[in-house]
Amino acid sequence: MMTSCFRFSFSAAHFYQQKNWSAEKNKNEFGKCFSQYGHGHDYVVECHWLTTVPQQQTELNQLTKSVREIFDHHHLNFMFHEFSDKVPTTENLALLIKQKLEEASKIKPQLATAKLLNLKVYETPEIWVEIDNQSLS
Amino acid sequence: MMTSCFRFSFSAAHFYQQKNWSAEKNKNEFGKCFSQYGHGHDYVVECHWLTTVPQQQTELNQLTKSVREIFDHHHLNFMFHEFSDKVPTTENLALLIKQKLEEASKIKPQLATAKLLNLKVYETPEIWVEIDNQSLS
Amino acid sequence: MMTSCFRFSFSAAHFYQQKNWSAEKNKNEFGKCFSQYGHGHDYVVECHWLTTVPQQQTELNQLTKSVREIFDHHHLNFMFHEFSDKVPTTENLALLIKQKLEEASKIKPQLATAKLLNLKVYETPEIWVEIDNQSLS
Amino acid sequence: MMTSCFRFSFSAAHFYQQKNWSAEKNKNEFGKCFSQYGHGHDYVVECHWLTTVPQQQTELNQLTKSVREIFDHHHLNFMFHEFSDKVPTTENLALLIKQKLEEASKIKPQLATAKLLNLKVYETPEIWVEIDNQSLS
Amino acid sequence: MMTSCFRFSFSAAHFYQQKNWSAEKNKNEFGKCFSQYGHGHDYVVECHWLTTVPQQQTELNQLTKSVREIFDHHHLNFMFHEFSDKVPTTENLALLIKQKLEEASKIKPQLATAKLLNLKVYETPEIWVEIDNQSLS
Amino acid sequence: MMTSCFRFSFSAAHFYQQKNWSAEKNKNEFGKCFSQYGHGHDYVVECHWLTTVPQQQTELNQLTKSVREIFDHHHLNFMFHEFSDKVPTTENLALLIKQKLEEASKIKPQLATAKLLNLKVYETPEIWVEIDNQSLS
Repeated sequence: MMTSCFRFSFSAAHFYQQKNWSAEKNKNEFGKCFSQYGHGHDYVVECHWLTTVPQQQTELNQLTKSVREIFDHHHLNFMFHEFSDKVPTTENLALLIKQKLEEASKIKPQLATAKLLNLKVYETPEIWVEIDNQSLS
Repeated sequence: MMTSCFRFSFSAAHFYQQKNWSAEKNKNEFGKCFSQYGHGHDYVVECHWLTTVPQQQTELNQLTKSVREIFDHHHLNFMFHEFSDKVPTTENLALLIKQKLEEASKIKPQLATAKLLNLKVYETPEIWVEIDNQSLS
Repeated sequence: MMTSCFRFSFSAAHFYQQKNWSAEKNKNEFGKCFSQYGHGHDYVVECHWLTTVPQQQTELNQLTKSVREIFDHHHLNFMFHEFSDKVPTTENLALLIKQKLEEASKIKPQLATAKLLNLKVYETPEIWVEIDNQSLS
Repeated sequence: MMTSCFRFSFSAAHFYQQKNWSAEKNKNEFGKCFSQYGHGHDYVVECHWLTTVPQQQTELNQLTKSVREIFDHHHLNFMFHEFSDKVPTTENLALLIKQKLEEASKIKPQLATAKLLNLKVYETPEIWVEIDNQSLS
Repeated sequence: MMTSCFRFSFSAAHFYQQKNWSAEKNKNEFGKCFSQYGHGHDYVVECHWLTTVPQQQTELNQLTKSVREIFDHHHLNFMFHEFSDKVPTTENLALLIKQKLEEASKIKPQLATAKLLNLKVYETPEIWVEIDNQSLS
Repeated sequence: MMTSCFRFSFSAAHFYQQKNWSAEKNKNEFGKCFSQYGHGHDYVVECHWLTTVPQQQTELNQLTKSVREIFDHHHLNFMFHEFSDKVPTTENLALLIKQKLEEASKIKPQLATAKLLNLKVYETPEIWVEIDNQSLS
């Protein structure tokens, strides 16, 4: 099984807040991650695609860049309705990036048979989450 | 000449905006860096200290960590009065970090003779600014 | 399947020696790794946990740090009874780190359902061992 | 399941060209990758071996170095008959490296039971291909 | 003194050959670096500019990218008349990159006062050359 | 001014201890760095040489490798008489590496005019010392 793999980075702001919690409880649970305006990260994303046609690599590279544009230089809490009631943790962000990558591949006829096998989202070089789809392939 | 060197990272949010410019002009000049809520980075800072007493390294390491706390997990535009009328570019941020490092060293008697010789602030691994004080030593 | 992943580093000393071999045979087999006092490495460890409860990430982060303390700034040959009769190769060290991580998770009620899926121990950035538990999940 | 993993780098030149295409079509399809003399990369390769005998790590390290020598400081298009009629894309290069690694292991009696489980070939740190053999293990 | 610093990478092929030497002498002197078609590298370049006007950073970033294009995806020996009689060592390449950067800055009116203070060209992450112009500033 | 720069790594063990201090005082001053057997690091060293003859790079590369051998896979406290009465801090280690590099260059006639301008010794990627000889050049 051969996969095509891409790594990209984007710069975004976020903060952690449960809206139905008090400020005190938010502070206790989330520490420095809870604040009014947020802080930011240079997120790093890795995605592995199972492809059946060799020519798909150029298409996948363009798709990767287009999904990067959706997130780059934005504030996750204020600019994404998905995070109006969900905390933008790395886990929730990974699920949203996965959704955006798969949506983008479905509207490209040339990528009809491509499958996103694995996705990593790094909060820092020391902490990240990984979504593995291999069992479904 | 021997220097003690430290590298640290902090996560912060920022945006570029000249308040006396129109939104259109800000957009033209600053592109994606201009926005209402901002985006974020994992800034990396390197500082080189000229020390005269070998025991100063532990003191300098603590000082470095205390200055990191000033910036980590904050929004540069909203949380620092220095950026109420100045754009938080990497150049301006570097000048502020230099000021905070030198202020912190002056209030520690054991660091009276330490001198900040060189400071680098990385916006990304590919673009950074460097302040060199060697000519003054 | 989503996993929470952590990378940490610790500094330790070790040497290779089979006690029932002659010095000459140890030298022939282990080369520079055989010596009386040892040498050292900044080991890097990556661990992947399968978690079922989102709140487990903070717990896992603390657990990771506590296991790091067990090994950091120690001499593997002299300070671990496990290496009194086993050579502290990267393979044997990986098995011991795996045991310590799993022991630490079992005594935390909040981590009862967490499972260590994958562990990497880097001897250098170019050589490492990986223990994969996915087939058991 | 424990695997022994090795990372190595080699410097090689290549260009993309379909010989039965016109220069114009090659230029349109391959862009800057199509040229008469080629350009070059410092390729990075990662290989994971499943081993049953602990002593195999030294053997595998030597084998890895010998396969590196086959590719290092060569021009892929001119020095490998495999690329006389195939474009030296990262995918095709990965298949050739896999073949060379497996051939090299088969002629070493001590590596009779070693199995190449996973191979990554990095064109750049941001784009790579991965060959996964785990399903066959 | 504040400098604006940029790091970029380009992929090129080269080989070492003194045309007035025999193949045997070239082989003895240059080892694997001597060959008919060459090999390649992902060169990394760092440049430090002394600027007097804050707005110059965007201009310098564009200039850096334009000089990168001169070298990227080319064969140094065949595509640069400067290397028709000079060996494309890292030293000679650094001198040519310096010349191209300074030529590009002189034709931009906005960069009339910018000065290239320091240039590093990395052959590998372990070996590089550095040109320092600080004494002239 | 052009310099030839080299980076190398070696693995060594060490501990911090002032022999004329009590165990308690050593523990208070040096924390985890004080112990009976020591711990270890993969030290990274960078050295910059000012050379006047282009052919010196190969010589300098060999010299660098020979000095690396002096330190690699050794215990600094037990194997170097220089550390019998001096604590092997990064500062003291840097001074010893500088001495060994300069001694090695003086016995090579081809390196008579080479000068060690700058030396960095990294204890970790975040903390290092730098010795700068430029003022003497």
